Amino acid sequence: MPTYTPPTKDMQFVLHDVLNVSASDIPGYDELDRDFTNAVLEEAGKLSSEVLAPLNPVGDKQGCSLENGTVRTPEGFKDAFDQVRDGGWTALDCDPEYGGQGLPYLVSTAVGEMFSAANMAFNMYQGLTHGAYNAIHAHGSDEQKQKYLPKMVTCEWGGTMNLTEPHCGTDLGLIRTKAEPQDDGTYKVSGQKIWISAGEHDMCDNIIHLVLAKLPDAPEGVKGISLFIVPKFMVNDDGSLGDRNALSCGGLEEKMGIHGNATCVMNYDGATGFLVGEPHKGMRAMFTMMNEARLGVGLQGYAQGEVAYQNALGFALDRLQGRDVTGVQAPDKPADPIIVHPDVRRNLMDQKAFVEGARAFTFWGASMIDASHRKGDEEAEQMISLLTPVIKGFLTDKGFETTVLAQQTLGGSGFTQEWGLEQFVRDARITMIYEGTNGIQSLDLVGRKLAQNGGKAIMAFFDMMKAYIKDNAGEDEDFDAQFLEPLKAASKDLQAAGMYFMQNGMKNPNNALSGSYDFMHLFGHVCLGLMWAKMAKAAKGALDGDAGDAAFFETKIATGRHYMARHLPMTATHLKRIETGADTVMALAPEQFASSAG
Amino acid sequence: MPTYTPPTKDMQFVLHDVLNVSASDIPGYDELDRDFTNAVLEEAGKLSSEVLAPLNPVGDKQGCSLENGTVRTPEGFKDAFDQVRDGGWTALDCDPEYGGQGLPYLVSTAVGEMFSAANMAFNMYQGLTHGAYNAIHAHGSDEQKQKYLPKMVTCEWGGTMNLTEPHCGTDLGLIRTKAEPQDDGTYKVSGQKIWISAGEHDMCDNIIHLVLAKLPDAPEGVKGISLFIVPKFMVNDDGSLGDRNALSCGGLEEKMGIHGNATCVMNYDGATGFLVGEPHKGMRAMFTMMNEARLGVGLQGYAQGEVAYQNALGFALDRLQGRDVTGVQAPDKPADPIIVHPDVRRNLMDQKAFVEGARAFTFWGASMIDASHRKGDEEAEQMISLLTPVIKGFLTDKGFETTVLAQQTLGGSGFTQEWGLEQFVRDARITMIYEGTNGIQSLDLVGRKLAQNGGKAIMAFFDMMKAYIKDNAGEDEDFDAQFLEPLKAASKDLQAAGMYFMQNGMKNPNNALSGSYDFMHLFGHVCLGLMWAKMAKAAKGALDGDAGDAAFFETKIATGRHYMARHLPMTATHLKRIETGADTVMALAPEQFASSAG
Repeated sequence: MPTYTPPTKDMQFVLHDVLNVSASDIPGYDELDRDFTNAVLEEAGKLSSEVLAPLNPVGDKQGCSLENGTVRTPEGFKDAFDQVRDGGWTALDCDPEYGGQGLPYLVSTAVGEMFSAANMAFNMYQGLTHGAYNAIHAHGSDEQKQKYLPKMVTCEWGGTMNLTEPHCGTDLGLIRTKAEPQDDGTYKVSGQKIWISAGEHDMCDNIIHLVLAKLPDAPEGVKGISLFIVPKFMVNDDGSLGDRNALSCGGLEEKMGIHGNATCVMNYDGATGFLVGEPHKGMRAMFTMMNEARLGVGLQGYAQGEVAYQNALGFALDRLQGRDVTGVQAPDKPADPIIVHPDVRRNLMDQKAFVEGARAFTFWGASMIDASHRKGDEEAEQMISLLTPVIKGFLTDKGFETTVLAQQTLGGSGFTQEWGLEQFVRDARITMIYEGTNGIQSLDLVGRKLAQNGGKAIMAFFDMMKAYIKDNAGEDEDFDAQFLEPLKAASKDLQAAGMYFMQNGMKNPNNALSGSYDFMHLFGHVCLGLMWAKMAKAAKGALDGDAGDAAFFETKIATGRHYMARHLPMTATHLKRIETGADTVMALAPEQFASSAG
Repeated sequence: MPTYTPPTKDMQFVLHDVLNVSASDIPGYDELDRDFTNAVLEEAGKLSSEVLAPLNPVGDKQGCSLENGTVRTPEGFKDAFDQVRDGGWTALDCDPEYGGQGLPYLVSTAVGEMFSAANMAFNMYQGLTHGAYNAIHAHGSDEQKQKYLPKMVTCEWGGTMNLTEPHCGTDLGLIRTKAEPQDDGTYKVSGQKIWISAGEHDMCDNIIHLVLAKLPDAPEGVKGISLFIVPKFMVNDDGSLGDRNALSCGGLEEKMGIHGNATCVMNYDGATGFLVGEPHKGMRAMFTMMNEARLGVGLQGYAQGEVAYQNALGFALDRLQGRDVTGVQAPDKPADPIIVHPDVRRNLMDQKAFVEGARAFTFWGASMIDASHRKGDEEAEQMISLLTPVIKGFLTDKGFETTVLAQQTLGGSGFTQEWGLEQFVRDARITMIYEGTNGIQSLDLVGRKLAQNGGKAIMAFFDMMKAYIKDNAGEDEDFDAQFLEPLKAASKDLQAAGMYFMQNGMKNPNNALSGSYDFMHLFGHVCLGLMWAKMAKAAKGALDGDAGDAAFFETKIATGRHYMARHLPMTATHLKRIETGADTVMALAPEQFASSAG
């Protein structure tokens, strides 16, 4: 059975040596000293490795079942959810006014990585609730907040997001779910929603559904969508539960992974709903939560990579097969552990270098969300808005790839259920799809974010890169050659790609959009390159300052060198692809694609 | 439910316009005129799309079950197997002396692609039998051939390959299964074998197991392994079945995919076995079949890519979501089909360009196997021996990647079982692992094949590339710029990588082995580039000759341009990675890999 070891030391390194959080002027960050974050991470790690991780294969095997409208979660999930609730983990970054602990989002990001790595399907129940909490917190009326948030903060009540319908997912302008205004100010919501994660289950007393629907007078398209609270059980004014609302789970989706999470068809049959915010402004309400939700999915992607890497490493250290070509390493054993083989080593280095870079990138992103929310820092808001599709798209693509690499480390054992690697692959796969497919992320990046505010954010990014390279050059030859030079080259490729879009996207937007996916990856490599430069610098500083634990810091630098030498060169290929524009991508007419058939 | 459309037209193009098979001097190829191969492909295609494909999701869902030692295959498999048998499909390229049809291996390759694409798990039953047939045919005594082959040709009896044991897969030198010689010239075979595909099932009257085991006086390691025939039921001299042998299926592996194929734990408890060939020469017997077996797995990889692509395309043409940014395409519909979006188009082009290139590469490889077997062409034998790890490793990695791309085309639907794409992903995943993991393929390529016979094969490859480029340059500017130039650049990268290995691998073999995986991919891109150049040339020739079906040939050229422009540039990145040698790959000590844990 797979195991999970919390990467506490690495998280501490990112928080304190790289981001230097307790010195930040973001309100609340002054509390985040090493001891405090260590205590939080230790506790979260214990819960993750001891309670959540053992339930991960159970959830995968048993899945959820629907009987008479009730969804049963896998054995042990309910108890574990109680432990998560009792530990106060659901309330970490919630508003103290509603019972939250008011900690920075960054802290809940670190904890979320652990929970997700240990049991992604399980952690989604709380994650979805948190998303719904955020929406109500940002856009609900005071009365709505008072009524729903305290119980959602504790996860006594769950929450969901209802967007997709059978005929539309990406293009929400097409939704058909209707909301009819009633004389008492409520609405009757009718329609079918699909792929509703945690739409119905047995772990909460009530479920607060957030549903996108159209009012009778709604304008066409996405500008005519409104957001409604539709509780499973009506909530009385005294907070007690009332009648069951007219909504039900019509079926569970059978899917490739995350079997422990109930993916529901939800039927609303004139269910009573309450408008959140203004009529027709539902999409805007969704968008304000998007940075956080998408960063959370990027996190899931690399978190699956982390746990897969750990188990691949365990296997590579144990499994005896063949001999080191440069000389026998374990003469007392029938063969050497497979970690001696260069191709196994390459595979593990690729995994490790990605996961640690991704963690730093995500934590940095989370700190920008904090800066935006807690300090009203507009530049941070614009930067994270630009980087969100990169975090979501790049980290989930590479996170999935990492689980596949880890599976490969195990050879045949990786394909069997027994070792658990194949579950990480299947679970990680969804992260490339939900919260907007990665294709949509790349469209958001190139079609929207690049040009937003006259390209202010991307210009700020380039300025930041230039300043970083300038400020850090010339002190250490090795650092310059191994980190700054590759970073400079990669950054140049990114600029050249942006320039190509500017010069060719005007004539024909397809020239830009045909390269959007490559641009997202190019951007991702530059960001991970920057993270690795920062981490290496911090590690070098620690070594110079004789901070102890030299092995850790040396490992960090060597791992970073691997990323810079072996992964950053991809930016040149991405640029080359981008510069072919729409030429070959759009060369065929739709009917030509089926040319091979007889 | 997914569907499958046989790519007959494209196969005919490769066979006749590119490989020009009926003009070849390989014995038996003169029969392969357009009408003949078309008739074969039409019939095989019908069986594939109408019988095998509909059973693919059935096999996945039901899987195999073990009751009282008997393995039950999924509903409908037995009937379908009868149809395959009755159609003579199992005997295509088998020796007429034992009831085979004596057709070239190339023909059974084309048919095999269809069967594998339609239902990979199902086709493995016959594929394994064919492998065992080949081993006995090449190394068995006349008596053994007479006794076993006729029934294996018809698949009345199945066949298996028993290599792996719980503690060893790649390193077969460690196997523990024993064979004790008996006075009557037979052997008592004892031991446990795992991951035995089709090890036990209900579709054949008998199963002929080929088992690797050690004689009591065996030398250590792989030089002490012998090969045995161990039938499930003893075969009497008159060909009738005798007693049940002392072997049994001890369990079925639960795995990520190919659920329709029984992956068995096989227990041999003093089972009667018959030595095949000479004592201690079992590995050699395995090796002689390896080119064919590994080409067959490469084929499975891209075949899953083909069927996944077809279904992704179907979805992209139907699904309405969003509008073409350059102008509405379907004004009468609420949205345009998603194929109008550049990123969807890029995704589909990537799939199509890979699959068609892979098909040409594989067919070319099969023709070299025919040249070697039927004509005794040693150069062809050496070339296919060099290219086999590339076909296996590159085509399965990219085949899997293609199924993931195809799944992505469907968004959320791709993750649900209903649409079937996720099965293609899960099934394709095994091809990167079995018949030697792709890491082992790269080791075989760089550690063995490159240097074999003083590097004769790789030199011959480079000579061939040079000659091809020289012979085809200067006739058509577009062709030169779009095909020959990128091919030349890629080929140069391959040569530079080989040079790096020569210059740095001597000092430290890890410098070469750390780049073996990248080299395999670099090589794969060059081969697919060559195939695309050849296909484009053939298509241009057909267009110039006014051969009709201009749309097909134009599509071919445009698809090739996409591969050359968007994929061949990867060779530069692979070269860059290779040229970092073992530096960062081997930088960490094994214990440093777990550095992130608290």
